[in-house]
Amino acid sequence: MSDTALRGPVRIVGTGLIGTSIGLALARLGVVVELVDGDPDNALMAERIGAGSRLVQLEPQLVVVAVPPDHVGTVIAEQLEQTDAVVTDAASVKGKPLADAKALTEAAGRASDLSRYVGSHPMAGSERNGPLAGRADLFEGATWAITPHETSDPAAVELVRRLAEACGARTVELSVPDHDLAVARVSHLPQLMSSLAAGTLVDAPTEHLELSGQGVRDVTRIAASDPGMWTQIVAANSPALSGLLEQIRDELDRLLIALSKEQPGSQSSDDEVTAVLRRGVSGAVRVPGKHGSPHIELVPVLVTIPDRPGQLARLFADAAASGANVEDLRIDHSPGRPVGEVELAVKPASVEQLVDVLTERGWSVHR
Amino acid sequence: MSDTALRGPVRIVGTGLIGTSIGLALARLGVVVELVDGDPDNALMAERIGAGSRLVQLEPQLVVVAVPPDHVGTVIAEQLEQTDAVVTDAASVKGKPLADAKALTEAAGRASDLSRYVGSHPMAGSERNGPLAGRADLFEGATWAITPHETSDPAAVELVRRLAEACGARTVELSVPDHDLAVARVSHLPQLMSSLAAGTLVDAPTEHLELSGQGVRDVTRIAASDPGMWTQIVAANSPALSGLLEQIRDELDRLLIALSKEQPGSQSSDDEVTAVLRRGVSGAVRVPGKHGSPHIELVPVLVTIPDRPGQLARLFADAAASGANVEDLRIDHSPGRPVGEVELAVKPASVEQLVDVLTERGWSVHR
Repeated sequence: MSDTALRGPVRIVGTGLIGTSIGLALARLGVVVELVDGDPDNALMAERIGAGSRLVQLEPQLVVVAVPPDHVGTVIAEQLEQTDAVVTDAASVKGKPLADAKALTEAAGRASDLSRYVGSHPMAGSERNGPLAGRADLFEGATWAITPHETSDPAAVELVRRLAEACGARTVELSVPDHDLAVARVSHLPQLMSSLAAGTLVDAPTEHLELSGQGVRDVTRIAASDPGMWTQIVAANSPALSGLLEQIRDELDRLLIALSKEQPGSQSSDDEVTAVLRRGVSGAVRVPGKHGSPHIELVPVLVTIPDRPGQLARLFADAAASGANVEDLRIDHSPGRPVGEVELAVKPASVEQLVDVLTERGWSVHR
Repeated sequence: MSDTALRGPVRIVGTGLIGTSIGLALARLGVVVELVDGDPDNALMAERIGAGSRLVQLEPQLVVVAVPPDHVGTVIAEQLEQTDAVVTDAASVKGKPLADAKALTEAAGRASDLSRYVGSHPMAGSERNGPLAGRADLFEGATWAITPHETSDPAAVELVRRLAEACGARTVELSVPDHDLAVARVSHLPQLMSSLAAGTLVDAPTEHLELSGQGVRDVTRIAASDPGMWTQIVAANSPALSGLLEQIRDELDRLLIALSKEQPGSQSSDDEVTAVLRRGVSGAVRVPGKHGSPHIELVPVLVTIPDRPGQLARLFADAAASGANVEDLRIDHSPGRPVGEVELAVKPASVEQLVDVLTERGWSVHR
């Protein structure tokens, strides 16, 4: 395995969104891709859209396991036994598949097989699922975590890196426990907090919900995600998540005690509340924005726009005419507002020119 | 007080963002506005940008108290005593100002003054503060809650409604406890959940944060809000908030117990996790989107765009050419991605045409 060029064939087990997208990306490069799925219709659909072929006679160089979280460990162990290929998976939690695969290979008296396994986690997705949602460019520029374990063969690690690069992704190497703690922090905990916050709205009278603004919309957006999939993810990452949830629970308890003591001007209670809020600010500013840098300062420019077709086109044409690159944008539409407000985020150097040009062209602009 | 036309003068106490914006909206209509602020520089700045005058000889018809949360009750009581005007305030919590004003008027032997007080809460804001951030159209189309109490004079309630309408807002009448529970649900609890989630990122290694996606950015965005202001809001609304926080704490406890029992295939633990996630879905879909309706179905259309100036202009011009009105949009930029993905949300009837036109014009479109 000293030759680590990705030549294929690559066998993809599980032709959902992720598996099919990997197939499309590789097929585009001329790599032979074999498609396997427990549901023959899925594999057929993936084949029809050009993600590979259901019948490949050659032994695979690499197997990518892209099945639902609960089955990943079992399928990894099966593929290690059935082939001599390097095996990776695409699951969003890495500890449990490794532990499952390890237990199964050991039980089969084939512990050394595990050196051919390297976990990985392409960090891209879509609100849609299934092979027809697959896209060759799904991983273009995305982060793809690679998580070698203690006995992973370095050549196998390199081959998985080649796979990620072939799909256009940027790789980050992390240990398995580090990866799982990281995704617990930046993905699984936010998901649960969003679900818990949204859950308090279930019994709210409709007139209460009329007071909703952009904040609650942002916080509860991901609460609408698929509960079946997320139950499996949460279950698989329960050790890392539990630690963080305990931390939250302890802070909540301190908050509740502080609030129960709340009296006009009670300094000690306020201090506790302020501490939670300040900690939140310190954490929020660390979340990377565009281009992975937490330190690109962007300036928001607010523009009021009438709610009719063509207004955004006019706005962006005018913004482009100013020479400013719009780095981020957001529409704020309070319930019932006949006008919308668009927030354009641009680099500090572009602000003045942007504001001047937009104002000159009749937009109502606020900084 | 049977004549409820808003004729002025209107005295505004507190010339920050909210007070100044009300002044600008009223002055635009020709209403005489008196500006009062403990900080003479603030009142001067508000006057200079046209929000009213610091010296008005006539007795006010209406006083608007727009001072920081901690001082609202005191200033309401002062204004009730110093004038015969209707008094309202703009604080985001209504129970505490009412209780404070009630206690103060009763202590002064002037309990009947309270019939001239009607609470209100204009639901608009900005990330900027101070008089210079003021805008005449800040409340255009926004929701403005009006919260009469048991002894509020109906004519006073009507006058406050006229104020809100003069500022261009849509009014919603709620009892004081109902209002405070509503904002606890749709504003204050989401704020604390965002702060708590963001707080867990403070100690995270930078490489963990590199795995951040759009979800954590959305959930933690409002955690960056001003801790000083929010401490006052949380303290003022502690009774309503405590009930919701206890509900979250109990759900967290059940989650932690479920996760500690988590074993491969443990159905009972999974059921608990699924219940929390499902409840989140039910709550999330109730949050109103555009136009206050939770039931306008919008379809997301994803478009890949190169990250250079002018691309958004081209995209929106092409979208407008299709005749589709873009109801909402979002840019998803994973760290390090050289391309961005724009999600355009349109009504179902516009989808096909939009996709056809964009595809025809060379965009990479995904549904």
